[in-house]
Amino acid sequence: MDVKQYMADVGRKARQASRAMAAAETGVKNQALIATAAAIESSRAALMAANKKDMDNGAANGLEASLLDRLELTDARIDTMIEGLHQVASLTDPVGEISDLSYRPSGIQVGSMRVPLGVIGIIYESRPNVTVEAASLCLKSGNATILRGGSEAIHSNQAIATCIEQGLKAASLPAEAVQVIETTDRAAVGELITMPEFVDVVVPRGGKGLIERISKDATVTVIKHLDGICHVYIDDQADADKAYDIAINSKTHRYGTCNTMETLLVAEAVAADILPRLAEGYGKAGVELRGCAQTCAILPAAIAATEEDWSTEYLAPILSIKVVAGLDQAIEHINQYSSQHTDTIVSENYSRGRRFIREVDSSSVMINASTRFADGFEYGLGAEIGISTDKIHARGPVGLEGLTSQKYVVLGDGQVRR
Amino acid sequence: MDVKQYMADVGRKARQASRAMAAAETGVKNQALIATAAAIESSRAALMAANKKDMDNGAANGLEASLLDRLELTDARIDTMIEGLHQVASLTDPVGEISDLSYRPSGIQVGSMRVPLGVIGIIYESRPNVTVEAASLCLKSGNATILRGGSEAIHSNQAIATCIEQGLKAASLPAEAVQVIETTDRAAVGELITMPEFVDVVVPRGGKGLIERISKDATVTVIKHLDGICHVYIDDQADADKAYDIAINSKTHRYGTCNTMETLLVAEAVAADILPRLAEGYGKAGVELRGCAQTCAILPAAIAATEEDWSTEYLAPILSIKVVAGLDQAIEHINQYSSQHTDTIVSENYSRGRRFIREVDSSSVMINASTRFADGFEYGLGAEIGISTDKIHARGPVGLEGLTSQKYVVLGDGQVRR
Repeated sequence: MDVKQYMADVGRKARQASRAMAAAETGVKNQALIATAAAIESSRAALMAANKKDMDNGAANGLEASLLDRLELTDARIDTMIEGLHQVASLTDPVGEISDLSYRPSGIQVGSMRVPLGVIGIIYESRPNVTVEAASLCLKSGNATILRGGSEAIHSNQAIATCIEQGLKAASLPAEAVQVIETTDRAAVGELITMPEFVDVVVPRGGKGLIERISKDATVTVIKHLDGICHVYIDDQADADKAYDIAINSKTHRYGTCNTMETLLVAEAVAADILPRLAEGYGKAGVELRGCAQTCAILPAAIAATEEDWSTEYLAPILSIKVVAGLDQAIEHINQYSSQHTDTIVSENYSRGRRFIREVDSSSVMINASTRFADGFEYGLGAEIGISTDKIHARGPVGLEGLTSQKYVVLGDGQVRR
Repeated sequence: MDVKQYMADVGRKARQASRAMAAAETGVKNQALIATAAAIESSRAALMAANKKDMDNGAANGLEASLLDRLELTDARIDTMIEGLHQVASLTDPVGEISDLSYRPSGIQVGSMRVPLGVIGIIYESRPNVTVEAASLCLKSGNATILRGGSEAIHSNQAIATCIEQGLKAASLPAEAVQVIETTDRAAVGELITMPEFVDVVVPRGGKGLIERISKDATVTVIKHLDGICHVYIDDQADADKAYDIAINSKTHRYGTCNTMETLLVAEAVAADILPRLAEGYGKAGVELRGCAQTCAILPAAIAATEEDWSTEYLAPILSIKVVAGLDQAIEHINQYSSQHTDTIVSENYSRGRRFIREVDSSSVMINASTRFADGFEYGLGAEIGISTDKIHARGPVGLEGLTSQKYVVLGDGQVRR
């Protein structure tokens, strides 16, 4: 197979299909989503059989247990896929929304209309449910999609692709609107990220290594999601109970997520009061504490933190703690070490909260709330295709709107420039 | 001079200065703009002397007359620069604006806050007034700027940079917030567009060649402005007078601008009526007509258009004309040949207008208005740094808002994730 030729063909078909998708009415797109759900429901046996092939191959190739777990399609996971499709169908369609339409002195009306991006490439690892999730969000936002899942999930993904194709056909939408790449050749990814004539945006979903590799080589725009080194700063005017709850929840609610706190900053004036109580809570949860010198003086059980700790995303029950003089030092530390993902201040002081949200340059800045809220569902986006740590185009949780662009709409009555 | 080292140094200083700029209050930024205007006013002699050096060098090096004209600083052009600074000072500051702040079921409030992009690189050709224009827009939107003008304007640009530095100092803003690259070495551009750690966006302002070169090599996001192949489609339900006015104005108001019409599409049913009248108007203006076979049958004076004509940006008194069956063929032609800049339908038919603005995928889509309206001032942006033909980040005329991004703001009262 000539991969370059094959990918150009996939790209051309996607570009072609994207025109029909951009013009498709909301009801038609919803019909495709619901018909896909029905096709998945009636294809459970086929999906399971395809997945068994992948699982058997994976086991034979010595795939890690955690990867095998992600790869597995269970009845419950298929239920979730079906539910997800219905959920996306129920979301408001952003496409075509006209905003800020107002009259100009010349008599023309000028506004902005939301439009699909065009063709979106999704590169992901072994979880087959991403195939449905990503395809449904792109479809609802009027885009054509090219999906490239992990090679170990190829049979599962092909089986899911068949269901999506049935859904598209049921709504008379072009089958090429969602294409799952048929080859496991790695060169296909290289092509996908370097054909801006056919692909408008690439969304890599997976580990940091995958995303860094893709960003390095891509000539197509990449919606990146790199580290989540999130901070909670407990101010000396914090409410002690809120500070306790937020600091514990931000770390211990889940360890492996990008919006989990990795570094706790505590104002000097309250450190001796609040740190021992927090250490008890973290101790119960089994969280290892790594502190600056002042922290270690207050908490003898804490390990001395190294410079590296301040820029480490542990994704584990480990927390670094630093005592700071106050707000200025906290902001300075965050702007130096944060990955610009999510940072929180706990304070009852109005002016400090106001300064924190203005001066901390992260995709989510919070006052008195757990970093764990940085999430498309919690923000009311309905769904998310990822959390962008970029500043350009989309920043923070990316929902349907992040998969669209805007164009200017001008309504006139024969006006010409004088 | 080690250009790599020098540019890294410029980049590092810009990144540093961008922090102070992001936190700067609107009044302070306006003060810097007005103080820059005052510095320019009191430096007229110095500016003229520096410009004379560039003009003399240009003449000695055999620079074309048109380039010498662009390079020249006259009293009137200095007046325009001063006026421009006051105008930008009077624009609403987009930074810090919080929108869509609403309560979520968890009790947190979620909204979006507009923030500067960070560091913006501007690459332009010989016009020294771009130095002031670009710097003022970046400054007002809270960004740090690195400016790289044409080497033939180096003395003029350095003199202007001195005035901007005085303005920044008068407002106690860091002098490094606006840096004019001091070397004319071309390698500096190569560095500027490949240091994403220091530069967030690059805006090339100049010819297509410059923009293509930069886009090809850049690893930093580029706000691109390529061709303007704009269309007017005269529908068979067009008001004949509006059609005449719009078709004449879109072509003849100015020939060298990107929002000038290059191809006129006319519905078959009205072609024989409207084309002779239009040909008379174009004839008076001295516009050469190149038509499809049907056009040439109606207008014997028209030259036969070749396939190449449909994708040519003439930037000259030349117009290609094609007779189409109706709306579908018009949209098809536009989506194939348009550069996705600006396209207009002239029609009194509601449904066709509605379809046109939805289905034509260009940065500006218009009903019954001259393509010449596609402009930041006409759209009410107050100023523009360029017109983007990209879909990602900014599309169409780019004003202050296009130089910003958004971050999520979460206001809580101790909420944690359950």
